[in-house]
Amino acid sequence: MAKEKLSVVKIGGNVIENPEALATFLEQFSELEGKKVLVHGGGKRATHIASKLGIESQMVNGRRITDAETLEVITMVYGGLVNKNIVAQLQSLDTDAIGLTGADINSIASKKRPVKEIDYGFVGDVKKVNHISINKLIEADFTPVFCAITHDENGQLFNTNADTIASELAIGLSKLYRVELVYCFDKNGVLMEVDDDNSVIDFMDSGTYEILKHKGVFHDGMLPKLENCYHAIEAGVSRVFIGNPSIISNKNQKFTTLFL
Amino acid sequence: MAKEKLSVVKIGGNVIENPEALATFLEQFSELEGKKVLVHGGGKRATHIASKLGIESQMVNGRRITDAETLEVITMVYGGLVNKNIVAQLQSLDTDAIGLTGADINSIASKKRPVKEIDYGFVGDVKKVNHISINKLIEADFTPVFCAITHDENGQLFNTNADTIASELAIGLSKLYRVELVYCFDKNGVLMEVDDDNSVIDFMDSGTYEILKHKGVFHDGMLPKLENCYHAIEAGVSRVFIGNPSIISNKNQKFTTLFL
Repeated sequence: MAKEKLSVVKIGGNVIENPEALATFLEQFSELEGKKVLVHGGGKRATHIASKLGIESQMVNGRRITDAETLEVITMVYGGLVNKNIVAQLQSLDTDAIGLTGADINSIASKKRPVKEIDYGFVGDVKKVNHISINKLIEADFTPVFCAITHDENGQLFNTNADTIASELAIGLSKLYRVELVYCFDKNGVLMEVDDDNSVIDFMDSGTYEILKHKGVFHDGMLPKLENCYHAIEAGVSRVFIGNPSIISNKNQKFTTLFL
Repeated sequence: MAKEKLSVVKIGGNVIENPEALATFLEQFSELEGKKVLVHGGGKRATHIASKLGIESQMVNGRRITDAETLEVITMVYGGLVNKNIVAQLQSLDTDAIGLTGADINSIASKKRPVKEIDYGFVGDVKKVNHISINKLIEADFTPVFCAITHDENGQLFNTNADTIASELAIGLSKLYRVELVYCFDKNGVLMEVDDDNSVIDFMDSGTYEILKHKGVFHDGMLPKLENCYHAIEAGVSRVFIGNPSIISNKNQKFTTLFL
């Protein structure tokens, strides 16, 4: 029997930070048919609030270190402020949302990122997605809304990359559903020329991806996103779409479809 | 057919603020048999963080006004920091917790408190408990953990008294369960002499309550709590227990039982 479709949609910080863009996106997300899951990043609000609280962002080689105080701010901002306001807005649009971290219903367990050259602090790499428990919410017609926080099953919360959470959720739920993973960001799709928003690659299979990667087409920010996507596709996710947030409602515009 | 038992347990700020006391309480809560729901206050952490962020608490006649900035802090601290750390700790104790505000699954709808002499700001009075949706979580063997935030179903979050949330949840769920409501606070129970922690009233029916109230036995902080309790009992809650946090595990000690 063909599996039912489920959409996993990830929005980034740029949408979160703009109340009008967020409102427009949430309306479109509410109108998206079928079962669905939302994953959101946190944007710069955590950084702003940390700095107001006198917590300095520690950066090593351009990457943020999540110390105990930073983790507290992330838990407040992503798990509280951002997540609960999105849930309240979705409820006003008749989407029966439920906000989650990976600790809730033990939905996403992770382990502390191993210390090699750098100790990233309270950063977790996803170990297990509990698709059975998450599906109990979906089967009850609730729409899960995940922030980028996981836990180690021993009481410790972890900061976790939102793109990774989206792809791991998509992989986990593909055991039960035909999952479409949608990455919304500030470009119209994967670009051949990073500065030309019209140079969207419409379709890209994994072979083409490898060739273009070795040619150096993709910039540093795009590469981990694409690695996440192909990892998801290889692990059972049906299709991945990448584009700006309106791709969930307007299929006439440009966006990128990735496949095996 | 006799209804199944369900416990609604409320803990206040004093437990939340003491990590060791909280850990002990959560262990006892995890061992509590049968279906259960936890409601927590936020304590003074929200006030501390607000003051660090330069947000002055506005007080009118000794009561806090929840302006937009204060609501943001409450959403961060109660809905994020406190709630998600409790959920993670309960998960480590094999209690399959799920953290909720009233916006999640539209579990608790409220309306803005009417402006009379004082405009309390973003404070909501409970309008409706969605016991059907909450019960979907309970039936799935999840343990709901509520913070003291509700919503107006139009996208607005509200600060709401945690004692009231506990009693309204108990009333709503008493349509489906034989509900025992447990208020944990820093005394051993309802006291005849406010300064004598051994003067616990063991049992108190509503008639005795009215007599003692008119005699002026109860101080200002206790009265709204007791009003909440008798309101719950009159509306179908089976029993109400009041005492220190260890009453959920140690029934040999002193505590107060309220009944009709």
